[in-house]
Amino acid sequence: MTDLSFDPRDPVALTQALIRCPSVTPAEGGALTLLADVLQANGFATHLVPFSDEDTPDVLNLYARVGPPDRPALMFAGHTDVVPPGDEARWRHQPFSGDIVNGQLYGRGAVDMKGGVAASVAASLRHLDAHPEAPIAFLITGDEEGPAINGTVKLLDWAVAKGDRIGHCILGEPTNPEALGDMVKIGRRGSLSGIITVHGKQGHVAYPHLAMNPVPQMVRLLAALTQSELDQGSDHFDASNLEVVSVDVGNPAFNVIPADIRATFNIRFNDRWTRQSLEEWIRAKLDGAAGNEVAYDLAFERSASESFFTPPGAFVDAIVSSIEAETGRRPVLSTSGGTSDARFIKNVCPVVEFGLVGKTMHQIDERVDILDLESLTRIYQRILGQYFA
Amino acid sequence: MTDLSFDPRDPVALTQALIRCPSVTPAEGGALTLLADVLQANGFATHLVPFSDEDTPDVLNLYARVGPPDRPALMFAGHTDVVPPGDEARWRHQPFSGDIVNGQLYGRGAVDMKGGVAASVAASLRHLDAHPEAPIAFLITGDEEGPAINGTVKLLDWAVAKGDRIGHCILGEPTNPEALGDMVKIGRRGSLSGIITVHGKQGHVAYPHLAMNPVPQMVRLLAALTQSELDQGSDHFDASNLEVVSVDVGNPAFNVIPADIRATFNIRFNDRWTRQSLEEWIRAKLDGAAGNEVAYDLAFERSASESFFTPPGAFVDAIVSSIEAETGRRPVLSTSGGTSDARFIKNVCPVVEFGLVGKTMHQIDERVDILDLESLTRIYQRILGQYFA
Ligand SMILES: [Zn+2]
Ligand SMILES: [Zn+2]
Repeated sequence: MTDLSFDPRDPVALTQALIRCPSVTPAEGGALTLLADVLQANGFATHLVPFSDEDTPDVLNLYARVGPPDRPALMFAGHTDVVPPGDEARWRHQPFSGDIVNGQLYGRGAVDMKGGVAASVAASLRHLDAHPEAPIAFLITGDEEGPAINGTVKLLDWAVAKGDRIGHCILGEPTNPEALGDMVKIGRRGSLSGIITVHGKQGHVAYPHLAMNPVPQMVRLLAALTQSELDQGSDHFDASNLEVVSVDVGNPAFNVIPADIRATFNIRFNDRWTRQSLEEWIRAKLDGAAGNEVAYDLAFERSASESFFTPPGAFVDAIVSSIEAETGRRPVLSTSGGTSDARFIKNVCPVVEFGLVGKTMHQIDERVDILDLESLTRIYQRILGQYFA
Repeated sequence: MTDLSFDPRDPVALTQALIRCPSVTPAEGGALTLLADVLQANGFATHLVPFSDEDTPDVLNLYARVGPPDRPALMFAGHTDVVPPGDEARWRHQPFSGDIVNGQLYGRGAVDMKGGVAASVAASLRHLDAHPEAPIAFLITGDEEGPAINGTVKLLDWAVAKGDRIGHCILGEPTNPEALGDMVKIGRRGSLSGIITVHGKQGHVAYPHLAMNPVPQMVRLLAALTQSELDQGSDHFDASNLEVVSVDVGNPAFNVIPADIRATFNIRFNDRWTRQSLEEWIRAKLDGAAGNEVAYDLAFERSASESFFTPPGAFVDAIVSSIEAETGRRPVLSTSGGTSDARFIKNVCPVVEFGLVGKTMHQIDERVDILDLESLTRIYQRILGQYFA
């Protein structure tokens, strides 16, 4: 057990301690064991759960819970792994120092998301001081910045199989573009990637009748894909969007008709679509453009993710009103941006994302305002208070 | 001077001697000096002319002429350089042996085109035996299979500057697909290559409004190019044809909108077009598709070549009737296939291509039927007879 020289109810001290653990994904770096020690010392049942899989590094994860197992817990989700610091010489303060200068706490993971994890732990311990029976859980992965294979997905399965009841989840990723209280994420678009290949027949440009150029055929397919609108958005989501991200032949010779052409695309899709309905739409579009003349191959990437959406209601209201009470700001309910682990959590319980200000995440001199750490802690405290009221 | 142990009026012996010179482009290999000796010994004024240029190998070339300079010569054009033999172990007979087995003379260059050069020399010497005043010229390059920079173009300029009159030209490339007498080339399509680039703005697929994907724009440009017909052919030519030969982005990441996309194309065009009219057509097509929305770059390759066409008439008739008299076949007047040095010669005089059977050219076991060598020599003799009649 770690000999704690600080009070984990102080989110600044806990964030510093976590930043000093060099947990560059997939390394655990001491961050999860530190959290496990803190939570266990405060009455949580803690489980450090390693997962492994083919072609991916082994990853340690932490699940912790306190309170009666039959009462639905409010679960805080997050990650302690961080992206590499890049060129350390370019940091004003060492990326694993946790130095505080002019009210800014520097370090890799300051906002993404050791600071968010620390605020949720500090808030929970404060809440438990007054309400020791509150059912609270933590789902903290070491595989969010990595392949996301040995993390949240498997740990959720593990927790569900264990039989604990989970009511709702707050994922503490940095959701605010500029200032704490700007934005809550109540959904995110899903992501689907695929590869289209058209096979032709190689030949000399002077004898086109002996060859079959696959390029014009691919142009027809891509025209059909890029000129079609998927939707015009939904109540809470932007329009779904397809981007052709690469087209490649790799033929250096001007006098050779190439054999093959390959195109890759990615779609960010809203709640009007499932992975399946989208795959069907793509096939229909391509078949329509191909007619009987073009033979193409279509393969979808395994890494697709569904969208998630937690409609406004009591849970979202509790979060919004807590933010407003603490910051004076009414946050935007957003569904924009990239994917997050909420895409997995939504299969178990409603999930909303709210955390720190993301401006410096993944950058040199990542840092968090220490006032934000305390404010976020008090926001989480208010949410806990309302949730269990 | 070479001590000749064979009669150069025998095209088989001369072909053998030339094949034994390992003149893999750009090496001279003794082939041009052998020809120069043969021609000089038979009354020709011979000029071994080296040319050099930036970024290309130095190349030796041969110009030879006999007869009064003020009378227009019939010029035979050709090359003694050959493509590499490839895996010599796969040849039934060594590629520089000149072995004759079952009536087939084996060796690199047998049909492309040491055999054709030998037949033209043998025919000329036989003709001169009876008509010593006939004006005959030879334009033999060592740079046809290479970059074609230090060969025919410069040697033609050199010969024209010298002041010799040249009436017509026969280029002895292998023009017959299956049997001697199949085909005469009275023209060839021109060739123009270009590169189109569309510059966008890189970004993350989740934030397309911060990026500008150049792929859909390129798709529009390529659709316009590939769906447009250049022409439906002309009296003696197939339709002009555009092939997009490569499209490249090179982006390995599914979540990144790429910055640039590049497409390369080649056009084989008939006598309805010049290089300039074609460039204007392409720009108009691309501008039409681009509208105000797409900014593209268009660059044409320096290596473009115009088409050539020698209309049927007395010169072509002399060739056709000579072929028919010797082989009993009436050759097709073709303008199909790739480019040849005739694209340069046409600027100086009318040019027609007729040579051996091309089936084995550039292949393992390239070979020529020795009966074809003798027949081609007699065809060239008949042409000389008619031309100077
Ligand atoms: Zn994160
Ligand atoms: Zn040739």
